[in-house]
Amino acid sequence: MEVGQVLHMNGGVGDSSYANNSLVQQKVITMTKPITEDAITKLYKSSCPVAIAIADLGCSSGPNTLFAVSELIKVVDSLRRKMKRKSPEYQVFLNDLPGNDFNTIFRSLSVFQTNLRNQLGTDSGPCFFTGVPGSFYGRLFRKNSLHFVHSSYSLQWLSQVPEGLENNKGNIYMASSSPPDVLRAYYKQFQQDFSLFLKCRSEELVDGGRMVLTVLGRRSDDPSSKEGCYIWELLAMALNDMVLEGMIEEEKLNTFNIPQYTPSQVEVKYEVLKEGSFSIDRLEVTEVNWNAYQNETDLSDAFKDGGYNVAKCMRAVVEPLIVSHFGEDIVDQVFQRYREIIADRMSKEKTEFVNVIVSLIKV
Amino acid sequence: MEVGQVLHMNGGVGDSSYANNSLVQQKVITMTKPITEDAITKLYKSSCPVAIAIADLGCSSGPNTLFAVSELIKVVDSLRRKMKRKSPEYQVFLNDLPGNDFNTIFRSLSVFQTNLRNQLGTDSGPCFFTGVPGSFYGRLFRKNSLHFVHSSYSLQWLSQVPEGLENNKGNIYMASSSPPDVLRAYYKQFQQDFSLFLKCRSEELVDGGRMVLTVLGRRSDDPSSKEGCYIWELLAMALNDMVLEGMIEEEKLNTFNIPQYTPSQVEVKYEVLKEGSFSIDRLEVTEVNWNAYQNETDLSDAFKDGGYNVAKCMRAVVEPLIVSHFGEDIVDQVFQRYREIIADRMSKEKTEFVNVIVSLIKV
Repeated sequence: MEVGQVLHMNGGVGDSSYANNSLVQQKVITMTKPITEDAITKLYKSSCPVAIAIADLGCSSGPNTLFAVSELIKVVDSLRRKMKRKSPEYQVFLNDLPGNDFNTIFRSLSVFQTNLRNQLGTDSGPCFFTGVPGSFYGRLFRKNSLHFVHSSYSLQWLSQVPEGLENNKGNIYMASSSPPDVLRAYYKQFQQDFSLFLKCRSEELVDGGRMVLTVLGRRSDDPSSKEGCYIWELLAMALNDMVLEGMIEEEKLNTFNIPQYTPSQVEVKYEVLKEGSFSIDRLEVTEVNWNAYQNETDLSDAFKDGGYNVAKCMRAVVEPLIVSHFGEDIVDQVFQRYREIIADRMSKEKTEFVNVIVSLIKV
Repeated sequence: MEVGQVLHMNGGVGDSSYANNSLVQQKVITMTKPITEDAITKLYKSSCPVAIAIADLGCSSGPNTLFAVSELIKVVDSLRRKMKRKSPEYQVFLNDLPGNDFNTIFRSLSVFQTNLRNQLGTDSGPCFFTGVPGSFYGRLFRKNSLHFVHSSYSLQWLSQVPEGLENNKGNIYMASSSPPDVLRAYYKQFQQDFSLFLKCRSEELVDGGRMVLTVLGRRSDDPSSKEGCYIWELLAMALNDMVLEGMIEEEKLNTFNIPQYTPSQVEVKYEVLKEGSFSIDRLEVTEVNWNAYQNETDLSDAFKDGGYNVAKCMRAVVEPLIVSHFGEDIVDQVFQRYREIIADRMSKEKTEFVNVIVSLIKV
């Protein structure tokens, strides 16, 4: 699988789109806001640049795409008012893989920019938005051209499915039944990728530039612990059921592995220190319920079904990978079964995603 | 009509797409190459920047989108080799209105970048491509952030349909039968738009930065002369025929006007001098046959029909405007008739587009 070509959230604004199924990711951005606000505040206060270039890496398309950066811009605008300084000009780079639906983002920009301008007031500097297609496991921007990098729920995606997963039969990700060499292969790929990510960003950021990265991760030291892996184990159950019923070939399932790694904060810290371009300002771990709608009131009946919500959220994320490997025909079946399995487990267990958040300064 | 929302070339890579029907535009870029080469050569020799930011305004999607900038990059690379200098990093901004098909551009970038890298060699600096959605009749980039601006066959498009065209009945653009106030309204809109364009770009370009602009225009002083207007008069004939046959309401036709202005070189020069931010290095006029395939050999039978070629080319350009105003249902009919009318005229007259090319330096 060519991850760079295949991996992208569901585009458009339809029922299965990421745009309409990304409330979990939005909650995570909101939870992380104190850390991103702190970071951009320190950045602005220390240098007061006349122009600020902000990149959102793995922006996808939908409300979240513009949510994070608009919050950052509002923080700067409020600061510069308190400090009685002229507004900087803002340059926003929205990055994702080339398969991302940039057209949908771009068509929503005009309304967004009008609203943002109304909120900021007319004496605020212009905000220029650009789309940057490409993998963040490579250079994306000119040297010393960025002030702030934000990335949320993107860096758990690897640049490729690790090599050497032949023994991971019946699983689609690390699992408690995965042999040790599978866990090692996944970890090695994470190390390579994350280290390369840090190196590329360090070239692109100005000295003193900052990054806040939120990664889907885990608290446990055990890479095959439930925290990071359970959501995929349940998908594997749905796929294995379909193998048993002859709807999917066993060989097809055995060669399918999710190009993801859910690191612990220790692993994140270790790579940052080893790579050496950044110092760590903050490193924290939080949790968010699988079902983003859990504490919402006034829900339509459909959204009261947690299994439905979570399966839809996961479908928006992983459908292109499934379709690319197994074909279009089985996809509705997969997610129908996945929904039922998830609903059953959610009724019996506490089900949460773990977020590892790190705030970094280029040294 | 909200031009900024409606105007865009046909997206995708299908039979009616701009990508597959833009050979005329490509020929114009090729014809203009000596002028763009001259301009980027002078720019590079005078300042040898370590990073070069190039913007293509109105890039559309298709082979032309990357053709012009890749030629510019090759010129710089060849120069810096002769001068034995280290390669600059290249930042390319591809701009068009938000309705443009950026997804298709972005998905083609990976192959394009690999080919470009193979042509340039491994010691060449990286090229970073970004998409910039928005109207060039407004600021698009940070202050002093661009070195070179290229735009071909885009600036004849106005920011809006001029006001005061109520008397232009039966016509869809300036025509010999248009009353004087219609010609004045079109000219006024051109003056406003072009002047604003120059002002915005002068803020964005570094001192000594350069622009090469190619505009669909005319040689004649008369704005309603055939050169710029004939292609639209023939489309108006097709639409008028359909009014007579009851397929289009007369009122609908009377309220349709193309948001375009085809200036003379004198008009271009006048606005540049009046605005004052740029000096003129070169100002030239060339022609290109309506039928881009005219002198091509080895054509399939379809492409031997000039009317077919020209109508397809025009359809790729103007279909979204037609559909937005008249609806989807009539569009095949319109272009079938247009094709026949064009074929008839091409058999009897010399039919050419006039290109006004201006090479500018920010003073």
